[in-house]
Amino acid sequence: MTRFLDVSAVSQLLRTVGIEKAIADMAKYIASDYKRWDEFEKVSRVAHHSELGVIELMPTSDKKLFAFKYVNGHPKNIERNLSTVLACGLLAEMDTGMPVLLSEMTLLTAVRTAATSAAVAKILARKDSKVMAVIGNGAQSEFQILGFKAVLGIEEVRLYDIDPKAMAKLVRNLAHTGLRVVTAASVREAVKGADIVTTITADKAKAVILTPDMIEAGMHINAVGGDCPGKTELHRDVLKMGRVFVEYEPQTRIEGDIQQMPASFSVTELWEVLSGYASARENEGDVTIFDSVGFALADFSALRYINDTAARLNAGTTINIVPLLENPKDLYSLLSPVALPLMPKVKEGVAVQRISA
Amino acid sequence: MTRFLDVSAVSQLLRTVGIEKAIADMAKYIASDYKRWDEFEKVSRVAHHSELGVIELMPTSDKKLFAFKYVNGHPKNIERNLSTVLACGLLAEMDTGMPVLLSEMTLLTAVRTAATSAAVAKILARKDSKVMAVIGNGAQSEFQILGFKAVLGIEEVRLYDIDPKAMAKLVRNLAHTGLRVVTAASVREAVKGADIVTTITADKAKAVILTPDMIEAGMHINAVGGDCPGKTELHRDVLKMGRVFVEYEPQTRIEGDIQQMPASFSVTELWEVLSGYASARENEGDVTIFDSVGFALADFSALRYINDTAARLNAGTTINIVPLLENPKDLYSLLSPVALPLMPKVKEGVAVQRISA
Repeated sequence: MTRFLDVSAVSQLLRTVGIEKAIADMAKYIASDYKRWDEFEKVSRVAHHSELGVIELMPTSDKKLFAFKYVNGHPKNIERNLSTVLACGLLAEMDTGMPVLLSEMTLLTAVRTAATSAAVAKILARKDSKVMAVIGNGAQSEFQILGFKAVLGIEEVRLYDIDPKAMAKLVRNLAHTGLRVVTAASVREAVKGADIVTTITADKAKAVILTPDMIEAGMHINAVGGDCPGKTELHRDVLKMGRVFVEYEPQTRIEGDIQQMPASFSVTELWEVLSGYASARENEGDVTIFDSVGFALADFSALRYINDTAARLNAGTTINIVPLLENPKDLYSLLSPVALPLMPKVKEGVAVQRISA
Repeated sequence: MTRFLDVSAVSQLLRTVGIEKAIADMAKYIASDYKRWDEFEKVSRVAHHSELGVIELMPTSDKKLFAFKYVNGHPKNIERNLSTVLACGLLAEMDTGMPVLLSEMTLLTAVRTAATSAAVAKILARKDSKVMAVIGNGAQSEFQILGFKAVLGIEEVRLYDIDPKAMAKLVRNLAHTGLRVVTAASVREAVKGADIVTTITADKAKAVILTPDMIEAGMHINAVGGDCPGKTELHRDVLKMGRVFVEYEPQTRIEGDIQQMPASFSVTELWEVLSGYASARENEGDVTIFDSVGFALADFSALRYINDTAARLNAGTTINIVPLLENPKDLYSLLSPVALPLMPKVKEGVAVQRISA
C-alpha cells in the first residue's frame, strides 16, 4: 500500500511539527543527502514549455529510493486565482518499484526551497547576519523568512514587492513571529544594510532585480526566483562580485542566473562546500551568491523527511495506486467479476482509508 | 480539483465498458494521437536502473495537455509476489499546470500496450490473419489477445510460456472468450503456421525467443517484451527478414530489439504509416516486425481515454493533490490555524470524496 498525503494532511503535519522546526529539520535531511552526492543518480529536470509556463519532472535516486516531483511554473496563474507553482511527488523503492508515498508538494516545495536556502546560507552567510531583505513577497516568502529565522537567527526582515497587496499579506503573516518587519519603498531601500538578500520573484522574464551598486561587502545573496531559461533576477555583473554556488552545475547553467554568463564562468557545487571539499566564505567582506534553481535532490530529501514524519505521527491515508494481486502474473483477475484484488477492507463508498484521524 | 482513479476505479471502469471495447476504443485514441505526431513534445523516457530493475518517467505533451507515467520493470518482483510492472500517471493542463487526473496505470499500461499492438497490426498484418502465437503468458498476455480479437478478429491463439502455471492461468482466463485456445510444447510449435506472433516475455536479458528458421512468409511479428537496454527477444537476423516499425526511433535504438543492430539499420516510425506517409504491408508474403518498447504518446492517449470515460461515467474520486487558495500568493495561509484553504466540504475523517458510488 502507498501512503497518501494530500494538501490537508501535509499542512496538518507541518502545523503539528511547527513550520520553523519543520524547515530546520528538513534542512538537516537536505544537507545530509548532499553529503552523499556520489550515491545519487542525477539528471537535469525534464521541462515542457508552453507560452504561459513550464511543467517539469524532477527525478533522482540513490541505491534504496527513487523520488520524483511534478511541478509547474505559470506566473499568469495568479490572474486565474491559481497558484504559480503547483507540485506533487512520489517516493518508491528502487528494489521493487513499489510506490511508498504519494504526496502533495506545493507546500513541500516552499518548505524545501526555504530549507535549502537556509542550509546554504548557514555556511555561506556571515555568522553575525541578523537582517535579511526579501524581494518578492509571494507564496514562498514566509517560508524563506521563517527558515532563515530558525536556522540562522535572522531578527529583522525588509520587504519589497511591486504588488503592495503581496507585501501587506506578508506583513500580516509575520505579525506573530517575533521578527522586526520593515517594508521598503524600493528594492534599493530594502537591500541597503542587509546581511542577506533573498530574491524570490515570479515573473518569467530576464529581470534585473539586483544591480551591482546595491551590493555591499559581506552580503550573502540568496537568488531563488531565476530558475528557468529566460527567467533571471540578477544583473550579470552582480555575478562577478563574489563566488557563485549552485546545486547541480549542468542544470544551473541552463536555468540559473548564470545562464547570462559564458560556460567557463566558475561556480562551486553545494555538495563540495557541504562536504568540506571546497571552502565556504573566506573573508567577512566577501560577497557570496547562491544561484538557486531547485534540484531534484532536495525534493528527494523533502519526501524522505515527510514520509518519516508521517510514519512517526501516523498521518495520511493509504491508496491503491498500484495493484496487490494474489497472483502477480494474473493482472487480468482485476477484470474478472468474481476474483477480486487483495486489498484491505474499506467502507462502502470510500475509496481511501484514513490511517489516523 | 483533481480526479483520482485508483486500481478499483479503473478495473470497474474497464469492466463497465468491457475490456475488448476498451482496448478497441483506446486503439482509436492512440492512432488519432499518432497522426498528430508533430504537435507533441517528445523525449526518450528517463530511466533509473538498479541491479534488480528499472524505474522510468515517460512524459509528453501537446499544446493543451501534459501527461506522464511512472513505471517500473522488475522481473524478480514475482518472487516477492509483486507485479513485474507497476505504474501510475498524471494528466495536466499545459496552460496552468493544474493536474486534471491522477490514475493507476498498471492496468492502463497493459491496455495501452495491447491497444498499440492491435492498432499497428491492423495496418501491418495480413487482412486474413486469424491465428496468433503468444510467447510469454504473463500479466499482459490476456490484454494482447483480447485486443487482437477485438481489433483484428483473431480466432485462434497458440500459447507458450516456460512457466506452465502462467500458461494454465491464461488458458483459464480465456475460457469464456470464444477463442480457440491451443497450448504448445515449445516456441517453435506455437509459432508454426501462425499469422501473427506476439512475444511478451519479462526476463531482463538478451534472450533469443524467435530465430530466423521459425519465421514464415507473411507473418507479422509483434515484439513487445524487448524494451530496455540488455533486454531483447529476437535473434538479430530476424530483424533483417522484414521491415521494422518503431514508435519513436531515438528511444527504440536504445531500448528495442534493434539495439542489436547498427545505427544505420533502417526503421519506419509508426506515425508515418498511420498518417499514410509511409507504406504499410506491401505484399502478402512480406514479414512485418513491430519492435515495440512503449512510448509516452500511448500513455498520453490512455490517460486521455480514461479521463474522458471517467467523466462520462462519473467515476472516481477527487483529491486535493494541489491547493486551491482564496489568495494564491498566500500559500502560508494553509499553515495558519484560522484561515483554511478553499476546499469542498468533506465528511470528517474522510480525505477523499467519492464522485459516484
